Amino acid sequence: MLEQLKEQVLEANLALPEHNLVTFTWGNVSAIDRERGLVVIKPSGVSYSSMKRDDMVVVALESGEIVEGDKRPSSDTDTHRALYLAWPDVGGIVHTHSRHATIWAQAGRDIPAWGTTHADDFYGAVPCTRMMTDEEIAERYEWETGKVIIETLRQRDIAPLAVPAALVYSHGPFAWGKDAHAAVHNAVVLEELAYMALFSRQLAPELPAMQQALLDKHWLRKHGANAYYGQKS
Amino acid sequence: MLEQLKEQVLEANLALPEHNLVTFTWGNVSAIDRERGLVVIKPSGVSYSSMKRDDMVVVALESGEIVEGDKRPSSDTDTHRALYLAWPDVGGIVHTHSRHATIWAQAGRDIPAWGTTHADDFYGAVPCTRMMTDEEIAERYEWETGKVIIETLRQRDIAPLAVPAALVYSHGPFAWGKDAHAAVHNAVVLEELAYMALFSRQLAPELPAMQQALLDKHWLRKHGANAYYGQKS
Amino acid sequence: MLEQLKEQVLEANLALPEHNLVTFTWGNVSAIDRERGLVVIKPSGVSYSSMKRDDMVVVALESGEIVEGDKRPSSDTDTHRALYLAWPDVGGIVHTHSRHATIWAQAGRDIPAWGTTHADDFYGAVPCTRMMTDEEIAERYEWETGKVIIETLRQRDIAPLAVPAALVYSHGPFAWGKDAHAAVHNAVVLEELAYMALFSRQLAPELPAMQQALLDKHWLRKHGANAYYGQKS
Amino acid sequence: MLEQLKEQVLEANLALPEHNLVTFTWGNVSAIDRERGLVVIKPSGVSYSSMKRDDMVVVALESGEIVEGDKRPSSDTDTHRALYLAWPDVGGIVHTHSRHATIWAQAGRDIPAWGTTHADDFYGAVPCTRMMTDEEIAERYEWETGKVIIETLRQRDIAPLAVPAALVYSHGPFAWGKDAHAAVHNAVVLEELAYMALFSRQLAPELPAMQQALLDKHWLRKHGANAYYGQKS
Repeated sequence: MLEQLKEQVLEANLALPEHNLVTFTWGNVSAIDRERGLVVIKPSGVSYSSMKRDDMVVVALESGEIVEGDKRPSSDTDTHRALYLAWPDVGGIVHTHSRHATIWAQAGRDIPAWGTTHADDFYGAVPCTRMMTDEEIAERYEWETGKVIIETLRQRDIAPLAVPAALVYSHGPFAWGKDAHAAVHNAVVLEELAYMALFSRQLAPELPAMQQALLDKHWLRKHGANAYYGQKS
Repeated sequence: MLEQLKEQVLEANLALPEHNLVTFTWGNVSAIDRERGLVVIKPSGVSYSSMKRDDMVVVALESGEIVEGDKRPSSDTDTHRALYLAWPDVGGIVHTHSRHATIWAQAGRDIPAWGTTHADDFYGAVPCTRMMTDEEIAERYEWETGKVIIETLRQRDIAPLAVPAALVYSHGPFAWGKDAHAAVHNAVVLEELAYMALFSRQLAPELPAMQQALLDKHWLRKHGANAYYGQKS
Repeated sequence: MLEQLKEQVLEANLALPEHNLVTFTWGNVSAIDRERGLVVIKPSGVSYSSMKRDDMVVVALESGEIVEGDKRPSSDTDTHRALYLAWPDVGGIVHTHSRHATIWAQAGRDIPAWGTTHADDFYGAVPCTRMMTDEEIAERYEWETGKVIIETLRQRDIAPLAVPAALVYSHGPFAWGKDAHAAVHNAVVLEELAYMALFSRQLAPELPAMQQALLDKHWLRKHGANAYYGQKS
Repeated sequence: MLEQLKEQVLEANLALPEHNLVTFTWGNVSAIDRERGLVVIKPSGVSYSSMKRDDMVVVALESGEIVEGDKRPSSDTDTHRALYLAWPDVGGIVHTHSRHATIWAQAGRDIPAWGTTHADDFYGAVPCTRMMTDEEIAERYEWETGKVIIETLRQRDIAPLAVPAALVYSHGPFAWGKDAHAAVHNAVVLEELAYMALFSRQLAPELPAMQQALLDKHWLRKHGANAYYGQKS
């Protein structure tokens, strides 16, 4: 069942160490089959070097029950499920502890939009969630992690595919996209942005957000209706 | 047509990931055949791992029309054309979002000449352009990007081959040279300088520009009429 | 004698350069056979590329005498012995000069618990020892290095396996675990934490320690009685 | 002639890119045969990937004349000669523009002794020279670079093998040792120290020099008459 999607999720997971986004097993990617209501996700705590397609775990979107696979799914599965349930146009989700995105999350700060590298894939600042309450942490922690990400985007009126990542306070980044491959792409870009923003701020401590016209231009030339970046597909 | 130049442009593009200057497809190199008035440039959004010589696109210097190739040229092609048209002694151009040069561009600051590593290839500070106007961004954005680079060098009275790079405000670096290979060389040096300058400034926040006599000495021993660095060619 | 333990210690030592924790021979791993009272440790100043299982040196826990091996044991052997003697549940110990953990040690500062990456493996700040006295340094220096680590954990009421590392003032990190493999794991995590904390502090200079509820949650979901991270073993 | 020394010099030069100390051809290593008064040095501007033993150039210590080899010697040859002439116990010299040592040189600051990593190979701060005069730069620049290094160590009463490196103001590091291999070792350590010191200072801006007793201990346990680090040779 879902062999093709499992293969995509496996490849997307293996792309994390290739892009230096993970140490040990600190990352996970999932993808969803919307028609069947099934999520395919990495198993928990299995090393990337030994991971196989059939280690991928299939869980039901609605109930979270394991539908296929003999391993435990990622401990963050409920965060993925919460996001898929809230955002119908998201097809893949990634969580990592990539160094520089995590640094911004630990500092509890949004990553400002400070250049065209940012604007090419993120249409504005990458938001950091509020601190979670002790109650949210104690009960259904991973599910509540998803809820606080959803709340953050809703309060700032951000469409999930316009700014395809968020930082969880004191924790680290989640990124997403139309599928698993796009989600990993966005996680890679996010890490790059986080690095650049960290040191842009060192050079220019009071740097304002970039010019709106430039943000619009770069976002739209790649993602707008009249996009002209890349090849026609 | 232009098989040798295409090969050079391909090799120069492939040198970008080898020198860790690009993530994904975030970079492009071109070269020019001055006699024929033709520019050879990387196609837009094609991955470095699959790129072949015949993917290189040939465009007319004057009109920007595609003369050969079945792919779209880099979305930055008009920036390259503007620079070639303004600067007759430039034979190759590179654009990247290399991390540290981009950090200085995002901060909107020139990279000061702070040591002999800089002086060996850049005869003075690497300038950062002014912010572009909303109008420049809205209309013929890539062409205007070239114009603002040209304006920056002209206003500061910099010869393009004396300081073979500039930072575009909120964007990133462009570098150039007598051919594609030299342009990539300068892009690599620029990234190195940008890294060193970032942390030299952290150590010595009020650091003045380096001694003029030392800047002269290093530039001239490598690029002057009596250069004595390297082997006689 | 102890061929299996020697093999584990060799592999754990070889993991140090793989994880970029050492330059030249600046690191050492040991493991203990509690029943026999014997410690297996890396030889002093032997390069990782040429190191073999039978180069590992066996020393007596109590006396420090060499029981097997024709090479000198690591010059830090007495530090390892002091820790094994004080902490009966520790089975493996690592010492490195990994860059960022060493930076915190040189600055003489604890690494605060600032995120879930930290909380997943370290149940609170990683402590830095006090400066050693001139007498401690002059006489039985390596043994006294162990003593000051033990003193530091005791004074702060830290269980060695709850915070499995410490920084020695002006020197660098020691990490440990239930065996050599776990000790290396903790040394890798420590270096990652040290990097992130360095720049989290740059972004947020007055950052308080993370929320206790979040520290508890992450530590316990991985190390508590009801742990649910990873696969059932 | 001097085939063995050429081989050592070649290997020492090739070790520079392996240790990430050089970009392009920005480094050079030499060694000396004291009995014959001959220095073997890397040719100028030849890439590491194509360099062969017979590309090494032999120059006379006293006169600087090329005795053997069909390539130009490194443009820094006279700096090496000046140091060899002043310091009879030095057998190998390295010059690089390694990133972090160069950052300290550009900032014009000594690298303080801030930990045992430093003390293991450098018996005190690594000194930065004064700014050279315009006259020194204009005339016999490379020779005068050597002279200012010698002056710096003499004024501070530093024995060359006790602190086997110096930073040239606005330029970069020179390191040395009893032979070419030791010189490269010291250049690698220097870069490591420079990195750690940069960020130790960020964490603790007013950090005093390390404890003298600890500096003594680490230096002497590795380099003193009763050294006990490493294997007996």
